[in-house]
Amino acid sequence: LHERKGTGREDQPRASPGRTGLAVAHQWIDRQIEPLAAESASPIDAVGRVLAEPVVAPSDLPPVDQATADGAAVRAEDTVGASTYNPVGLRLLPFGEAVLPFCATFVNIGQPLPRGADAIVPLDHVSAKGADGCEVIDTVAAGDHVARKGSQIESGSSLLPAGRWLGPHDAGLLLMAGIARVPARRRSRVRVVLTGPRVESTGAGTAQDADGPMLKRLIERDCGTVVEQRHVERDRAALTVALSAPRSDIVLIVGGTGRGLGDCASAALADAGELAIEGVAINPGETAGMGRTGVGTPVILLPGVPSACFWAYELLAGRAIRRLAGASPALPYASKEMRTHRKIVSRIGLTEVCPVRCIDVDGVEPVPSFAAVGIIAMAQADGFVILPEGSEGVSEGSTVTVHLMGICGTHRPHTSEVAS
Amino acid sequence: LHERKGTGREDQPRASPGRTGLAVAHQWIDRQIEPLAAESASPIDAVGRVLAEPVVAPSDLPPVDQATADGAAVRAEDTVGASTYNPVGLRLLPFGEAVLPFCATFVNIGQPLPRGADAIVPLDHVSAKGADGCEVIDTVAAGDHVARKGSQIESGSSLLPAGRWLGPHDAGLLLMAGIARVPARRRSRVRVVLTGPRVESTGAGTAQDADGPMLKRLIERDCGTVVEQRHVERDRAALTVALSAPRSDIVLIVGGTGRGLGDCASAALADAGELAIEGVAINPGETAGMGRTGVGTPVILLPGVPSACFWAYELLAGRAIRRLAGASPALPYASKEMRTHRKIVSRIGLTEVCPVRCIDVDGVEPVPSFAAVGIIAMAQADGFVILPEGSEGVSEGSTVTVHLMGICGTHRPHTSEVAS
Repeated sequence: LHERKGTGREDQPRASPGRTGLAVAHQWIDRQIEPLAAESASPIDAVGRVLAEPVVAPSDLPPVDQATADGAAVRAEDTVGASTYNPVGLRLLPFGEAVLPFCATFVNIGQPLPRGADAIVPLDHVSAKGADGCEVIDTVAAGDHVARKGSQIESGSSLLPAGRWLGPHDAGLLLMAGIARVPARRRSRVRVVLTGPRVESTGAGTAQDADGPMLKRLIERDCGTVVEQRHVERDRAALTVALSAPRSDIVLIVGGTGRGLGDCASAALADAGELAIEGVAINPGETAGMGRTGVGTPVILLPGVPSACFWAYELLAGRAIRRLAGASPALPYASKEMRTHRKIVSRIGLTEVCPVRCIDVDGVEPVPSFAAVGIIAMAQADGFVILPEGSEGVSEGSTVTVHLMGICGTHRPHTSEVAS
Repeated sequence: LHERKGTGREDQPRASPGRTGLAVAHQWIDRQIEPLAAESASPIDAVGRVLAEPVVAPSDLPPVDQATADGAAVRAEDTVGASTYNPVGLRLLPFGEAVLPFCATFVNIGQPLPRGADAIVPLDHVSAKGADGCEVIDTVAAGDHVARKGSQIESGSSLLPAGRWLGPHDAGLLLMAGIARVPARRRSRVRVVLTGPRVESTGAGTAQDADGPMLKRLIERDCGTVVEQRHVERDRAALTVALSAPRSDIVLIVGGTGRGLGDCASAALADAGELAIEGVAINPGETAGMGRTGVGTPVILLPGVPSACFWAYELLAGRAIRRLAGASPALPYASKEMRTHRKIVSRIGLTEVCPVRCIDVDGVEPVPSFAAVGIIAMAQADGFVILPEGSEGVSEGSTVTVHLMGICGTHRPHTSEVAS
């Protein structure tokens, strides 16, 4: 009954093959998958994508000497000795005009420093006096409230490094620097094939209903686009045909990865190309697999049970898709060292994802596992502790690395609050 | 020259009014802004939005007793004493049939437990024997590898709480539970008015080029939609007219918030409705303001300088837009206690955002400030320390709360890596 990889028959159940360790599975992914080509994109279209090459400043920033405060542009030497008790009177020239000795002109923040001036007296220390005069009540030094040409960044120096995942502020920076196009990795094209249910649904919803939409959002998060999502009967020949469809950057097959009756994802992948790994030592998700189609497109096999589908995506498919994007393949969660207030149990031989709840600012406790409650564990957890293959668990009081979920808005103890 | 709020003349520069503390500005926002109404949305459309009401399970999950492993459904009592050395033979019934004494039938994970059976022997411990027999090599107890009806969640119990910011896994959970529509807060409708430049551009890019795209992405992150983005001349009457445009949930005016020549955002807001706060004690961003249009729509005034625009958005406008979304108004960054390896300087009287770089797993050091390098500080920082109004800074070796940026993919020291 223990059959060799890729030759399994789906008309009878089979025993589990040996599971491949997570590190080996990651090595396979990292060897197979290179970042996609760069394309020229506007800074706003590039937000959420990764720079393929460093971006260099095309010119000095600021491009000329600039005021960094609203105020009066002056010659610093003319203000020597000025104070509240000794206001210094200067002649007020029209807005922005060149500054002569014992004269001043008002400028706004960001404007070029008028010719002749070498400092700005901020508005709080200067007041208009009559029709064409002003009074300065503070002494300034040359360069005060002035940003020199090129002082923020010099022409030709690095603005953003290759590999930078661009945020909204980076778009602002690029546009401010006058850069209209950047070399960004293109979005990956992902095909998702959902294998049909093995039996009629017994409840209101099914794994097939849940997995497709869930994966779509995860793929988008990882700079991918779902170019096709289709349902295919859980049939070896039909699945083999689906694997020969037009090219994409990666294919995800969902469901039929087990060794039960009718499970044929592994066999279909072996028929269509190469089944490289069948079963990965992760929980949830241990029936996951991977390989390539006949034309070399990477394929990740994801279990159909939603919690297993989610974690096999995060630990395997997501890594592959993040690599295509040129992004860090690491899990896209913030992590934090915290103390567990209760023992966390893990099965030896599997990398195990253990859901935990935050109970105070640096303490967590386990919540019911995926094995016990399925995907509901996701609703009850604030984050996850991932225990390696060699671990049988950690004892109460241990320090663990918690991967935190949902930093973008729930009332969670780990979101930022500004003291004021 | 110190004029009263809302009556400023933009034809001459003015001294700064007193700045409103950040806590008071937050109180104003929190009092003005209530979460938007809920609308019925599919779980997939609701991802990234907030639940307005708790979602209750419409039925038991699992809906019937289910297998949690691929294997043979048996009566546990028939396996007593089974081991590798004492295989127990059972008659194999067709797939999924009701189980009689000393019989078994194969089922797959997720399938209903066949009538008569009370446990599953996983595939690793059962093998087919001849045409209609099987051998069991492990003893199972009643309930082994079976999820009882309602054991994950009972009909009528809480599935997800009100206020939940929905992630991809929540869509999976809802669809799995058979829920097709949920009450989600609608996306806010945001109008962005960019005031024209005060002078001709001196470089390749301008603040006006940068602020609009940057804000669009930030607003989208906070569940908002930019329904209109327009450029308006920096003219008090034109801006007052723009403030009377058709309703949205909130209006952001960008630029012209200072007290320099031509700055008229505050005056226009006073003309159009109410200028409630002029100047907030934050840096960057201290010329920000807020108020309401004539019909009561909240208005946030953001400075035009990109770094000030960004932080006035994050600390003020973003809070308002996150409140409209029903989300936590806190900053959407993960935060972490870290040690600063160098002194961080802050001006007393202002809540100051200080950019820092991670130098090791729990250490940071300051990088050049926004005052020194403008928005380029965003490119050089891994995160921010926010020092309150009363602080003059923190000394070397102090523990500080660091708000971390860019967890979604750059090669940053604080992203998660799974040990394997």
